[in-house]
Order: sequence, then structure tokens, then C-alpha cells
Amino acid sequence: MTAPKFAGIIPPLCTPFHDDFTVDTASLRRHIEFQLDAGVHGIFVLGSSSEVAFLPDDQRRITVETAVDQVAGRVPVLAGCIDMTTLRVAEHVKTAEAAGADAIVVTAPYYTRTHVAEIDRHFRLLHERTSLPIFAYDIPMAVHTKLDRDLVLNLAADGVLAGLKDSSGDEAGFRLVLQQRRERGLEHFAVFTGSELLVDSALAQGADGAVPGLGNVDPVGYVLIYDHFRGGNPQAARREQERLLTLFSITDVAPPHRMGRGSAALGAFKASMKMRGFIDNAVMAPPQLPLNDDELLQIKGKLAEAGLL
Amino acid sequence: MTAPKFAGIIPPLCTPFHDDFTVDTASLRRHIEFQLDAGVHGIFVLGSSSEVAFLPDDQRRITVETAVDQVAGRVPVLAGCIDMTTLRVAEHVKTAEAAGADAIVVTAPYYTRTHVAEIDRHFRLLHERTSLPIFAYDIPMAVHTKLDRDLVLNLAADGVLAGLKDSSGDEAGFRLVLQQRRERGLEHFAVFTGSELLVDSALAQGADGAVPGLGNVDPVGYVLIYDHFRGGNPQAARREQERLLTLFSITDVAPPHRMGRGSAALGAFKASMKMRGFIDNAVMAPPQLPLNDDELLQIKGKLAEAGLL
Amino acid sequence: MTAPKFAGIIPPLCTPFHDDFTVDTASLRRHIEFQLDAGVHGIFVLGSSSEVAFLPDDQRRITVETAVDQVAGRVPVLAGCIDMTTLRVAEHVKTAEAAGADAIVVTAPYYTRTHVAEIDRHFRLLHERTSLPIFAYDIPMAVHTKLDRDLVLNLAADGVLAGLKDSSGDEAGFRLVLQQRRERGLEHFAVFTGSELLVDSALAQGADGAVPGLGNVDPVGYVLIYDHFRGGNPQAARREQERLLTLFSITDVAPPHRMGRGSAALGAFKASMKMRGFIDNAVMAPPQLPLNDDELLQIKGKLAEAGLL
Amino acid sequence: MTAPKFAGIIPPLCTPFHDDFTVDTASLRRHIEFQLDAGVHGIFVLGSSSEVAFLPDDQRRITVETAVDQVAGRVPVLAGCIDMTTLRVAEHVKTAEAAGADAIVVTAPYYTRTHVAEIDRHFRLLHERTSLPIFAYDIPMAVHTKLDRDLVLNLAADGVLAGLKDSSGDEAGFRLVLQQRRERGLEHFAVFTGSELLVDSALAQGADGAVPGLGNVDPVGYVLIYDHFRGGNPQAARREQERLLTLFSITDVAPPHRMGRGSAALGAFKASMKMRGFIDNAVMAPPQLPLNDDELLQIKGKLAEAGLL
Repeated sequence: MTAPKFAGIIPPLCTPFHDDFTVDTASLRRHIEFQLDAGVHGIFVLGSSSEVAFLPDDQRRITVETAVDQVAGRVPVLAGCIDMTTLRVAEHVKTAEAAGADAIVVTAPYYTRTHVAEIDRHFRLLHERTSLPIFAYDIPMAVHTKLDRDLVLNLAADGVLAGLKDSSGDEAGFRLVLQQRRERGLEHFAVFTGSELLVDSALAQGADGAVPGLGNVDPVGYVLIYDHFRGGNPQAARREQERLLTLFSITDVAPPHRMGRGSAALGAFKASMKMRGFIDNAVMAPPQLPLNDDELLQIKGKLAEAGLL
Repeated sequence: MTAPKFAGIIPPLCTPFHDDFTVDTASLRRHIEFQLDAGVHGIFVLGSSSEVAFLPDDQRRITVETAVDQVAGRVPVLAGCIDMTTLRVAEHVKTAEAAGADAIVVTAPYYTRTHVAEIDRHFRLLHERTSLPIFAYDIPMAVHTKLDRDLVLNLAADGVLAGLKDSSGDEAGFRLVLQQRRERGLEHFAVFTGSELLVDSALAQGADGAVPGLGNVDPVGYVLIYDHFRGGNPQAARREQERLLTLFSITDVAPPHRMGRGSAALGAFKASMKMRGFIDNAVMAPPQLPLNDDELLQIKGKLAEAGLL
Repeated sequence: MTAPKFAGIIPPLCTPFHDDFTVDTASLRRHIEFQLDAGVHGIFVLGSSSEVAFLPDDQRRITVETAVDQVAGRVPVLAGCIDMTTLRVAEHVKTAEAAGADAIVVTAPYYTRTHVAEIDRHFRLLHERTSLPIFAYDIPMAVHTKLDRDLVLNLAADGVLAGLKDSSGDEAGFRLVLQQRRERGLEHFAVFTGSELLVDSALAQGADGAVPGLGNVDPVGYVLIYDHFRGGNPQAARREQERLLTLFSITDVAPPHRMGRGSAALGAFKASMKMRGFIDNAVMAPPQLPLNDDELLQIKGKLAEAGLL
Repeated sequence: MTAPKFAGIIPPLCTPFHDDFTVDTASLRRHIEFQLDAGVHGIFVLGSSSEVAFLPDDQRRITVETAVDQVAGRVPVLAGCIDMTTLRVAEHVKTAEAAGADAIVVTAPYYTRTHVAEIDRHFRLLHERTSLPIFAYDIPMAVHTKLDRDLVLNLAADGVLAGLKDSSGDEAGFRLVLQQRRERGLEHFAVFTGSELLVDSALAQGADGAVPGLGNVDPVGYVLIYDHFRGGNPQAARREQERLLTLFSITDVAPPHRMGRGSAALGAFKASMKMRGFIDNAVMAPPQLPLNDDELLQIKGKLAEAGLL
């Protein structure tokens, strides 16, 4: 048993745009520098928070190329290869490989009605096609399939999966993964939570790290949780997480009757990143809807309260 | 008010593959000829039955180009532009336009959490970018959002949508669309059912036509339903639909514990198409699973009973 | 094969209350007379439209006793025995038997996580305990389980189920039940649709009848659909159904942000019944919310337009 | 601000039956003594684990009366008042009051389609009718509605709710409740987790206690978690929770193709309780299915491994 290669805080980076929705690579580079300065242990580009579902393929390519180039090996770069089924995902894998990503992140098939035997085949076929480590991305909110626990652990045991990014919201299931990882001697299999409100708990339970969307806004906070935990100070980790719980209310400023919860959360992240000087432009790709002035003002107030402005 | 431009039986064509999952254009052309010989009133390529979710973009392009070329104007060609959000769909729209499709078919956004105001924006932005008629494709089984009835009818009234392909399975809601289309004077808005087991009923309720997946196997049957209905013989239409209800049991031959319902249905369609000589190869794109020999034998028996072999 | 014992229009009666939420038996009797005058072929008490989920057991008992007494054998009386699991349902069955109901109506277990083998056992155990005909009530909107088609047909073949009331909204599945009923020679098994917007279609597909909630407001309309259909005039049946489609908009007058769709629909039914003089009081059991004056005025207008006032 | 009145480990007791499904009060009394000996801080009767959904009203009454009598004031007794809507719940509240329960536990309405304003009215009307403290029971798996966070906290602020039993599985939402409880100064409002696999984490996050179904089998384990946590030894609490994570695998011994997950889990609990001598008979109420001999043997092995036999 060796320690996992991937550990710590790996934020799923938002992708800054120009007004024409092409990637603002200068802002992306600057955002990455803010993240690295904060001490993050890796970055994840082309995850759900990146608007990967909104980005045409050429903009996806530019994103991963820019990120790899800017990071320049200082931390690992994980690249989402998010598409509906095997052959389409395989195209994104080629792009990630060409760009020099350190690992890829892949969901269950979606749009199609799938089956556990088909999900198994999906990951195995992709593993045959790439030597990059594969993270399974468990995100039923997006793909409407929960990854089966036995499937994930069997794929880990067979060397198909290198890790799991669990954004399922099923924390009891997550803990059973951690428990059974121990029981089956699969400690090389890296397990990350995507639950940005429960990072201290996930670490205490044995997770290797976290992929917190809110880390786009306050990477220092998440790195502190990790450092406090590693330093044997779970109370300090909890206090930091609780500070971030309060900050997370920025994602609820825009009300549900006006826009989807995706637009509301991402809009809050991007607005905050702009207010903090990480990026130049908070525009989101269509058909997402923008926050209004009143909502932006509320977010500004919350950032100020949190000492982030 | 003019009569809808689109009406009748418009099968959502399956896409035949070579063993390497590239499109078998010769088989596709032959399949289209079988369909046109049967008297279908249009074809729909790159719909869910086409494995559009499994096809890389270049194979999608080949499919629509081949279809338009083969049909050569004899009937309208509808092209699915199936992707997660506006900018990605817009790329497929460009391909459909370049290939010469007569209309495009677009779902609600998926993967992302969406909102009725965002779906509205989605269709309006696409309408600004193309002069092709747009059909809304209501398929919550795939995209996990049901299109709102008022949204659809308002977009029809505003000239954004030319039609609706309703695969929602919500037949009461479908009927309310038909009723309110009448009440609002929107008869130019074409309304098609995707419920292949209820075509006679949908026509009796006032639908303009149907997009039946089972039409890949027995297009003559569906054309007969339409002709009987138009000829004032609903009883004969019903008998033909009931014959097709029995045939539809091919989609249940592969059991749920072995594969997804998508693989089971599509596998049955493609196997039947091959047995009937429409295509050369029944292979499905990964990660779908193949039917086994016993299942294929059962399908053969059912085709023979239906007089299709 | 004998013809089904149950056929035609069997409205699921709303239960009128006094202000203290006890059953207003005088109004209930009057409402039943309006229904019988309209020519309905049976009545269904203690179904979802009756507020069965809101009625304490003694009020349920009074309801079925009053209905059986008032109907006095003129048409069959079906009684809902709606509860979570077998032993609780069995208590309601005893009440229905004692009151003299002609058949009982039973859903899948709910609140508990159930399984097809458990649902099978549920119906079989109840059949052992009563000689009353049992209708399966397929209502996933309420119980969150869809009855399996093979289960239902096997229970019919074994004499456990006498009929099906399908409020699943899955019209394709409903049609497969009708088709397989024919194929398996189970014509004695009565199949009713609960889709009040699709009665003409269901009859054309071979259903024995309908259980339309809107029949509380306009029983004459539904009896006309049935009579037109039986008289070989499907066009007239369709026109009548379309008139009722327009009337059905009363259920949407109260907006979704203000109350649940149950309160909105039931409130509209009860308000209409009161306006038409069927009942004295439109109050609904808590925690449902009442319609406001503006909403009541809109409903009055719609009834007037429909010629019902 | 006063400390919550309710805190610690409050197991949701399973209800032992005779073969005729009447409550085995002698076993129930013995089971309660095993729990009290283990040091639990309260008991919860007529929760989901009690088969409340399966118990006729007279058996529910016997259960709560027996529990209150046996406990005799040594710890608080919480009584589930589980039914579909207000008036039906109110009948169970009367029974709980008459029996001398210390608090009642109430879900959102179910079977009916509900709305946040109706759920609000539901709890307020019940609060008007009883002076017993009311716990909201958030269990969307059973009632298919998630309690809204603002609703719960507003009801707490208004004195309508005394506590929350959160079995929603939404741990991020649970943590936001804890956070906002602090922010709003509602520390008198007791917050319990029903997630038996995450008790150490919930306590670390600030929860007052837990309602663990697995506590029926191993109450000592859960009391140890609580004691270790209170004693400032989170590592020991974690180790104990991890031991219980392994034990929890008894609930998966019966496979999903054979029975519902409710039967599998409850069957495992009751079988274990019998093997440990807590109760005489492991029978479950219909239509649940029994474990088979092989499954019972596996459970025995797991209990032995855990040192519980």
C-alpha cells in the first residue's frame, strides 16, 4: 500500500469568459495564481463549476491547455472529460492527454438510460484507451445516476479507477466507500468529497481531500481546514468550515423563482471572483441568467463580512 | 393560419454502424430507401433512437449529410441538435444547416440544473442564430426536465418554435397542448407524438403526426395507421396500432437485470432491421451491451409472427 | 369469458364537510343524487378526490355507509381502502364490508420502501381476507410506486384482482395492459382509466370505463362521452371531451406559488360543486389551503362559459 | 438560551410481534430494559423502524402505553404520530398524550401533493392542539417531501417545533440547519440526526444527538460514541462509529432482487435482536418478506465478528 498520489484541496475552477463567451485566458491564469498562492494541492478544470456543460469543444481545449501551461507542474491538473457516452468522452480524453493533464475525471453515461453493467463497461473501455489516472465523478444531480458502491470499489481494485470525486450528496454512502476501502486494502484509491460544506467531516472520516466549488472564492479557507486537520486541530478546522458555511449563503441570494440554482450559485462564485480581483468579467454562458444589481450588492456585503474584500 | 408544413409519420432513424462504430453510410442509405418506399412523410436523424448521445461529432455530421443527400428532397429531413446547452447546440445547428436539413430538433438544457426562464432563453437564442424551423423535443426521460406547456405555446406564438416532438409520456399534458393550440389559434405549430404505442389516439386527438421508434422496424404499419385515420377509418387504424403493440414486445426480450432499457430497445430495433435486410450490422455503440443469441432468436420469432420475415 | 361487471363512468366523489370537517351527509346524499340523475354507472367513495388521506377513520366510515345507503343498489359503490400496508388496509376493508360496498380499491403499500414481491403478497393477503372484488389503484403520484404490468395481469389471472383503476399517467403502459388483457384472455378483468382528460381515447383503446375527478363538477359530460362512444360516434365523444378539457382549467386557477396542486384542484372541484348547488360548503380538510375570492370568481366565470351555471 | 431538553442517543425502537402481529409487550419491555441498561438517553417508539406504517391503531396504542409504563420516567419517551394529514395525525397525538409520552414526532403530509405553506399550517395546527413538544421528522424517503430549511427554523423560532429528527440523508442541509440555529440563537431547538452511520460527524458538527436504527442491535456502541465525543475523544468516537459501519452490513445481506430494502434492514435488525436475546420473535408485519436461513446465518456470523454474540 502506498499513499494516494492525489490529496488535499483541489478546487474545481470556474472558467472566466470574455463577453463573447470565449475563455479569458489571462483571467484564468490569474485565477490559477491566486489558487496556487493560497496553497491548493491541485486544480480541477472542466468540472461542473467550470461551465463544462456550456463550453464548446474548442473552448474546453483552450481551458485545459491554459491551465496545464500556467500550473507548469507545480500541482496536479485534473481535467473533466464530461460527455454522454464512451466514444464522446474518449474524444475529450485525447484532448486532455494532448494538453498534458495529470488525470481525467469521468461521470456515468447520461442522456441515455444506463445500467450498472454498462457503466462498468464505460470506465473499463476508457481505461483501455488512456494511461492517465481516471477519477470517477459521482454527480447524480447532473447525470441522474448514482454510482454503485460495489462497482466503484471493484473498478478501484482492478486498477481501472484511480480515484473518486463524490458529489452525490450521499454522505452515508461516501462513508461506506471509505470504510470498505480500508477493509479491502485499497488505500491507493484516492477519495475526495465534493461537498464543500462538509470538508472537515470528510477529512475526519478518512477522505483524502476535497473539491470545493466555494474554493474559487476563498481558497485560503479550504487550505486552512486541511492544514488544521493535518495538524491535529479538528476544532480549528471546524471553525473555519463554519465560517465558510456562512459565506456559502452567497449562492442563495438570487431567488429560485427567478433562475435555476446553477445560475444562482455560479453567478455568485463568478461575481465574487471578480470583486476579489481574481477575474475581469463575471459573465456566464447562455442560457444561464445574470444576477441583478441588488443581488450583486448583497454578495458584496457578504464578502465584506467574511473579510474577503 | 396555414396548415402545418410537417405532418404524418416521421421515424427517428437508427444509425447503422461498422464494427468500429463509424457510420455505415451504405446501410443508412438503404434504410432510408426502405422508409421512403413505405411512404413515410419525413425522416428524423440524430434523435435519441439514432444513438445521437453515443456519436462523436464527425459521425453526427456524416449521418445528417448522408441522409439529406439520400433523401434528395423527397421528404423533409429533421436533424437532432442534441447537446447540453446553447453554445454547444449552436455548433450542431451549424452542421445541420450546412448539410441542408429542413428543420432542427432541440431539447431543454441538461446536465446543468435549469429553469423555465433559462429554457425560454435557450430556444430564443437558437432561433436568433438560425432560420431553420425549430422543433422542441420534450424528452424528460433523457434530459430530466419536462417542458412547460405555457412556455412551449408562448414560444410557438412568438414564432420561435415551429413544432413539438413530445416524448414526455405525459399524454394528458400533450392533449392540453393540442387543446390550447386550437384555443390560441396556433394551428401552424406542428405537434407530433413520440409515443409509438398511441399513434392512433394522438391522431384522433388532433396531432399532426408521429415520430415512432418502432417505425425503424415496421414503417409500413405506421403509415397505414396514418392513412386509415386520414381515410376516416379509425377502427382500422386501431387494429394496425394493436398489431404494432404486440410487435413492440421485442423491446422487452432482454431482461432488466442484464442491461439498460435503452440497450434492450435499441438492440431489438437494430437486430430487427438487420433481419429484415435494412442494414448490414446491428452493433450498438459502447457502453451499450449486445443482445445474446437466445434473445435474438426470440426477436426473430416475433418478427415472423408479425409477418415481417 | 364474461363481460366485466363494472363498466362506464364511475366518478370518484368528493366528500362535503361541515366547518368542523365532519362529513356533511346531507350534501353527500344530494351530490350522489346529482350523479345518479346524470346517469353515472357507479360511484367511487374514499378515493384520492374524496380527501381520503385527510379523513379520520370514523369520517371514512360515515362516508361509505352514507353512500351505500343513499345509492341503495341502483349502481355499484366502490370504496377506497387507502392505507400504508396490509394490516391497516385490512381494517378499512372490514368497514367497507360492513357498510355494504360492492368492491374495494387498494393501492400499493406506501411510506415504506416496497418491492414487487411485497406488493404481490399485499394483494394476495387482502384477497384471502375478503370476498369483495378488489381493484388495484395505480397512483404513483400518491404512493410513489408504479404497479408492475406483469404483476397486475398475473393477479388478475389468479382471480386476486377484479379490476384496475389506472391513475398512473402512463398511458402507453395502460394500453399495454389493455392489449395483454386481450392476448391473455382476461376480459373479465375490468380496466378503468383515471385520466379525466383522455376518456374518449381510453374507451377507443378498449377500456371499460373511467373514474374522472372532474365528473364531480360535470357528470353529464362524462356520461355523454361514454354514450357517444357506445353509440358509435367517436367524433361526438371527442367534442365532449374537448369541452371538458377547457373546463379542466378551473384546476389551475390557484397558482403553484400559493398552494399545492392538490388544494388547487380539489378546491376548484368543491367550489364548483357548491356553485352548482350539489353541496352546501366547499371547505377542505387541513392542512389544505382555501381558494381566495378572486380565484373563486374566475372559476365561476369558467363554469358560466361551460353552461354549467 | 437554555440547553436543549433532549440530547444524546435515542434509538427508534423496533416493535416485537407475536405470530399474529400483535405487539409482544413482554419482549418490548425486555428490549427497553436492554436499551436503558446500555445507557440510552431516551427512546423513540412508533418511528419508521417500529413498523409504524404496518401497525393498526390499537397496536400503536399498546406500543406507546407499554413503553411509557416500562420506562417509568427514567428517560424521555418520544412517540411517532405518523399519518398522512393533520386530522389523522391529531388522533395519534391524542393517543400519545393519553399514554404519557414526553414528545411527539410528526412528518410532512404524504400521499397528498403538499406545499410548504401547507406543511407550515400542518405543524401550526398540531401545535395548537397539544402542549407536547413536537419534533419534525424529515424523512423524504418515506413521505417524498424534503422539509424546507427556512420553514423548520421559522417554526422553531415561533415555538411550534421543539426539535428536528433529520433522516433526510441531506447532510449538507443538516449542517446548514445547525449553522443557522447558531446564527439565529435557537439553541433551545433540539437537532438530531437519523443517519446512523454518521453519528460521530453529526456530534462534531453540533448536533444534540442521534436516533440510530442500528441502536436496536448495539445500543452500547452508540452510547460509547456519544460518551467519547462528550469526553473530548473524537478519535475513539470515530473508531466506535467505524465498528458500527462494519456491523451495518447486516442490512444488505438479503439481496435487492428478493425483497425491499425496508424488509432487508428491518429483518436484519429484528433477527439480531432475537439472536442477542432482546426479543422472542423476529417476525415482521405483512407484506414484508422474511429473511431466509442462509441470510440469518450470515447475520449471525457478523454479530459474532462484532463480539455481540
